[in-house]
Amino acid sequence: MVARGPFIVPGFRVSAVASGMRYMGRPDLALIVAEPEDGATAAGVFTTNQFCAAPVIVCEEHLRSSSAITGILINAGIANACTGEAGLMRARETTRLAAQALKVAPERILITSTGVIGLQLEVEPVVRSLPELVEDLRVDGWDRVARAIMTTDTVPKLASAQVQIGEKLITIGGVAKGAGMIAPNMATLLAFVCTDAAIEKSVLEHWVRVAADTSFNAITIDGDTSTNDSLLVLAGGVAANPVITEENSAESQLFGEALKAVLLDLAKQIVMDGEGATKLIEIRVTRALDEASARLVAFTVANSPLVKTAFFGEDANWGRIICAAGRAGVYLIPERVTLHFNGLCVFREGAPVGGQETEEKATEIFRQKEITVNLDLALGSSSFTTYTCDFSYDYVKINASYRS
Amino acid sequence: MVARGPFIVPGFRVSAVASGMRYMGRPDLALIVAEPEDGATAAGVFTTNQFCAAPVIVCEEHLRSSSAITGILINAGIANACTGEAGLMRARETTRLAAQALKVAPERILITSTGVIGLQLEVEPVVRSLPELVEDLRVDGWDRVARAIMTTDTVPKLASAQVQIGEKLITIGGVAKGAGMIAPNMATLLAFVCTDAAIEKSVLEHWVRVAADTSFNAITIDGDTSTNDSLLVLAGGVAANPVITEENSAESQLFGEALKAVLLDLAKQIVMDGEGATKLIEIRVTRALDEASARLVAFTVANSPLVKTAFFGEDANWGRIICAAGRAGVYLIPERVTLHFNGLCVFREGAPVGGQETEEKATEIFRQKEITVNLDLALGSSSFTTYTCDFSYDYVKINASYRS
Repeated sequence: MVARGPFIVPGFRVSAVASGMRYMGRPDLALIVAEPEDGATAAGVFTTNQFCAAPVIVCEEHLRSSSAITGILINAGIANACTGEAGLMRARETTRLAAQALKVAPERILITSTGVIGLQLEVEPVVRSLPELVEDLRVDGWDRVARAIMTTDTVPKLASAQVQIGEKLITIGGVAKGAGMIAPNMATLLAFVCTDAAIEKSVLEHWVRVAADTSFNAITIDGDTSTNDSLLVLAGGVAANPVITEENSAESQLFGEALKAVLLDLAKQIVMDGEGATKLIEIRVTRALDEASARLVAFTVANSPLVKTAFFGEDANWGRIICAAGRAGVYLIPERVTLHFNGLCVFREGAPVGGQETEEKATEIFRQKEITVNLDLALGSSSFTTYTCDFSYDYVKINASYRS
Repeated sequence: MVARGPFIVPGFRVSAVASGMRYMGRPDLALIVAEPEDGATAAGVFTTNQFCAAPVIVCEEHLRSSSAITGILINAGIANACTGEAGLMRARETTRLAAQALKVAPERILITSTGVIGLQLEVEPVVRSLPELVEDLRVDGWDRVARAIMTTDTVPKLASAQVQIGEKLITIGGVAKGAGMIAPNMATLLAFVCTDAAIEKSVLEHWVRVAADTSFNAITIDGDTSTNDSLLVLAGGVAANPVITEENSAESQLFGEALKAVLLDLAKQIVMDGEGATKLIEIRVTRALDEASARLVAFTVANSPLVKTAFFGEDANWGRIICAAGRAGVYLIPERVTLHFNGLCVFREGAPVGGQETEEKATEIFRQKEITVNLDLALGSSSFTTYTCDFSYDYVKINASYRS
């Protein structure tokens, strides 16, 4: 259902330029514009970090005060986070400049930033670049946008899906960046998803929340929830389907499932491109007492440096997974816990399965690129799945010298 | 007050031998014996991990059922954790064998293990080694014990202090091992502390709890609380001071302060020898609303992989510390938060101090071996200090291949 290549979303045009703000010789400033004169319906999910960045504050204000959005301006390299009042003024000023260039009110503009914390956003490169950004707007520029928003990402991330709603085929297409500071509750993660579907704001908001919970809020690379995370979804409506107004209608469900699929695919692409990552690990906690405890166990295992380095070392050290589950602060009955790797049972009801054959098979599984861990608590009926990656030399290398 | 070299505690003899259980050609089995015929008063603090290891279960039983302890048997290499009913039987059997060798009831013996999770303890090497262990008991063997309990530790850890109680000079001496899986609530951490002080069990238990909270429970290397953590304190009483029976007496306070100093010193030695560690980082959170939130902010910063790799890279990336504080799940007012490195202010009341000079000074501080981070929340009057280390290539290297 989901395709990873370039896409077009009818009713949207995009562009990206090299502003010279921080990265040299590569595009680092991108613009997404909704063509309809009265803009697009919009919804967003943002970081829960208490030091949220200045652009996050501006986005939240504009999504509240404006019924429609025309443009999103994105810069990579400087996060404009922990920058105090000066940072907020600069975020507002760049928003005003983009609004002027697009001839709309500032409330119609959203702004997002990613990069180093604590540096002030430079306004001058934005002023210089805006005319070119507006001039270059085109329907097929999403690959350039996906590249312009990268920081330590190594590959651009695009995903799209199409779904029939009534007589109309609607498209949902999105780009994302991640790489580090990725944890539940929206990490240093930016994602921009556009659709030509016609949908009411409240229904769009509902699906964005639901889809974020099982995608961007279900992944972790290093447990660090960043200051800048933003997922923005715009619905332009040019597909001219009958407007989706009821959360529970069949059309709404179809739209919601497609949105979830696109977001989950982007989330997995982020994990696979985690800083230094060599493996994609899916951790399923099943039969927990409730979803909160399933979530807590899954994330405690997923964020354990000892578990993550064992995956990197291709060492099927299941004891570290059991140990991490045991320290999650969740009630467990050790004698009930069972652990599988890709269907191979290594620990059953509180005791190791053991044996040379099990060890050899487990080692073989750990050599694969994608590994599924199933931790069955045998206590209740709730479950949660998280996606993470391993912890390698390169994670340390990338993060020991990120600012320089 | 605290010395790090070898020591003697009157009334205790110790030994260590190479049992051949897992490590070849080095001592890996140690014995600590209290000489008084009716044993020593004892207290312990153990892991809060729900998968606590078999020896932890045995220790807790014996500390409850027996009023005095004669011996502690320690093996390194196999943790006897997550080993089910068979593991518990093996722990009981080795305890029984040690009791037999020392001619006391099994309840008089404590047992601890450290090493790989999920492997069964081998009883045969213990049987073979016990006669030699008993024969070699000597008062000055603590350095050999400190070496025998090492796993990925690179240096033995010993600390001792002497304090005048009434007419008598009493000694408190201890050894510890750590290196990985170190987090609050007692990580893969074994510590054995002996004293010749005469003290009632309830008062000893009080001070062991208090001293553990500001030492072993205040450090973190990787956030992973292990299955085997055990702090055991024995008081043999041969100093013949008037027995300490009141928690609040002057003698009790003197004893408590000395115990805290020995435990804190051992805890710092563990952090400095953390797997791959190159720096000792002290993180002080001050003026928090309450101690629980000070603790949560301190540990969230201390466990952040992004913060730890920045210390390794000697990159004074203060934004990562602020970001980690912001995601701790604790109420903060960003505009009040101030951050210092070794007294240098880099972030004041929600905004960066900035400037080339600050940046240069901060970089210089990050090149030092010991760095103090002071995060002032300006909200209340509670504080908490944690100790941690940086995250290096070697942490990944050590943990990617620990079992092989």
